[in-house]
Amino acid sequence: MNISGIPLLSKARLKRYLKLHQKKCRDTEGLFLAEGLRTVRELCMSMPSAELLEALLIREGSVHDLGFAGKWKERICSMTESDFSRLAGTSTSQGIIGVFRKPDEEQAERHDAGKEKTASFIIAFDDLQDPGNAGTIMRTAAWFGCDALICSRGSADPYNAKSVRSSAGSIFSLNLSLTANLHEELERLAEEGFAIVAASLGGRDFREFDSWPAKLVLVIGNEANGVSGPVQQLAHRLVRIPHKGSVPRVESLNASVAAAILIERLVLGQG
Amino acid sequence: MNISGIPLLSKARLKRYLKLHQKKCRDTEGLFLAEGLRTVRELCMSMPSAELLEALLIREGSVHDLGFAGKWKERICSMTESDFSRLAGTSTSQGIIGVFRKPDEEQAERHDAGKEKTASFIIAFDDLQDPGNAGTIMRTAAWFGCDALICSRGSADPYNAKSVRSSAGSIFSLNLSLTANLHEELERLAEEGFAIVAASLGGRDFREFDSWPAKLVLVIGNEANGVSGPVQQLAHRLVRIPHKGSVPRVESLNASVAAAILIERLVLGQG
Repeated sequence: MNISGIPLLSKARLKRYLKLHQKKCRDTEGLFLAEGLRTVRELCMSMPSAELLEALLIREGSVHDLGFAGKWKERICSMTESDFSRLAGTSTSQGIIGVFRKPDEEQAERHDAGKEKTASFIIAFDDLQDPGNAGTIMRTAAWFGCDALICSRGSADPYNAKSVRSSAGSIFSLNLSLTANLHEELERLAEEGFAIVAASLGGRDFREFDSWPAKLVLVIGNEANGVSGPVQQLAHRLVRIPHKGSVPRVESLNASVAAAILIERLVLGQG
Repeated sequence: MNISGIPLLSKARLKRYLKLHQKKCRDTEGLFLAEGLRTVRELCMSMPSAELLEALLIREGSVHDLGFAGKWKERICSMTESDFSRLAGTSTSQGIIGVFRKPDEEQAERHDAGKEKTASFIIAFDDLQDPGNAGTIMRTAAWFGCDALICSRGSADPYNAKSVRSSAGSIFSLNLSLTANLHEELERLAEEGFAIVAASLGGRDFREFDSWPAKLVLVIGNEANGVSGPVQQLAHRLVRIPHKGSVPRVESLNASVAAAILIERLVLGQG
């Protein structure tokens, strides 16, 4: 697509989008930023409604195959190099940024109804802090067909630009929700028949369980402190990933790696 | 430990250490940087020889429990805040940087001889590019008791500060080597009886294999392009991680996640 004829992003809109690097502005505006061609393209392909794309911003002089964006031509704006680098969170943003609208819960439910299925595998973040880990776990969850993600208030914002990037554009494929009280939310889900499974270095080797309940919530804890005490108390199963050898050669696994190994085992099973 | 009485790092040494952010200087000097208390402590605890710690650098005004460093008191230096932030690669380095010596191959072999075991699970990077992924895979490999890591010349440098940080200090627990020709190296290992297993989106579902050879090399490819053609040709098994659902909701898994799932399955087995 030729960049000529594409309008330049106005200073007023730039100012508004720059604020999206702050969580509170993402919350107020209901918008988030996504960087990089692959991420933006995946988000465009998977968004539940075409209205969720607010703008497609292209750095002047960068060349992209924007075939996927043909439907939304009127939402494309160009940006000068200096404006673009102010908005881009990384130096490797490849000259393309998408501004997307967060799906509201009503929309998310409609999207769900279309799929005609009920959540059966939910991931919960118990103050997981690193946005890179949050995004990587979303990507893994999307690959293995998990349905929903619940974030405790102390967790990384899944709409953080780094998290969106690590998710490889999979953010629309999960129902996201934020809870002020994860413990109460898990109690409610347990009453609905969900088994609460929490990853814990002090838990039982996951290979000791012959099977896994059909409806479950997998809780991933904070990188330094693990799953919080009250949530451990409430969990039906505490599971750990065994190390190999008499003594582990490293203290622990990375949180997104531990989550991936457990999600894979829980979804694909032991055999 | 009281910071008073600790000598200030000289400008000459600062200049020398600053250069360690460049791969070619790490190679010439045989040194690398590690940031963060946990990473530095793990490296100190796991280094095969006490000579591998060159210096422990503390930012003025930061308070640390340096109990673990008592043996190396004379190698501790303090740094002014501005010097420290020049050397630190991240804003979250917690005020401590370790300068370590890379184990030379001779030392690595002595270390190995002490363990009296032969490598049986080797990881190979076929142009894996992201240092964060490289470090995370080293950490996973250490947890699951892998023996060695071979990096193709186009791969991220495992001694990059970001990679060392992501490895959580596990870098000394693997025998690292760099090869100018991964293909030839894998051919040599195949002749020694190693099965070459390569991760590939076009491979067979790993659950189709009932068992895994006792001696194997797992090849992890480039984030964008996967395992290179010649290495795929040579591999005894190409394996993929199946997605769940009729269509995957994301294009692929993160490379360090895919590596973790395969390492875990190969080490802990199917059951």
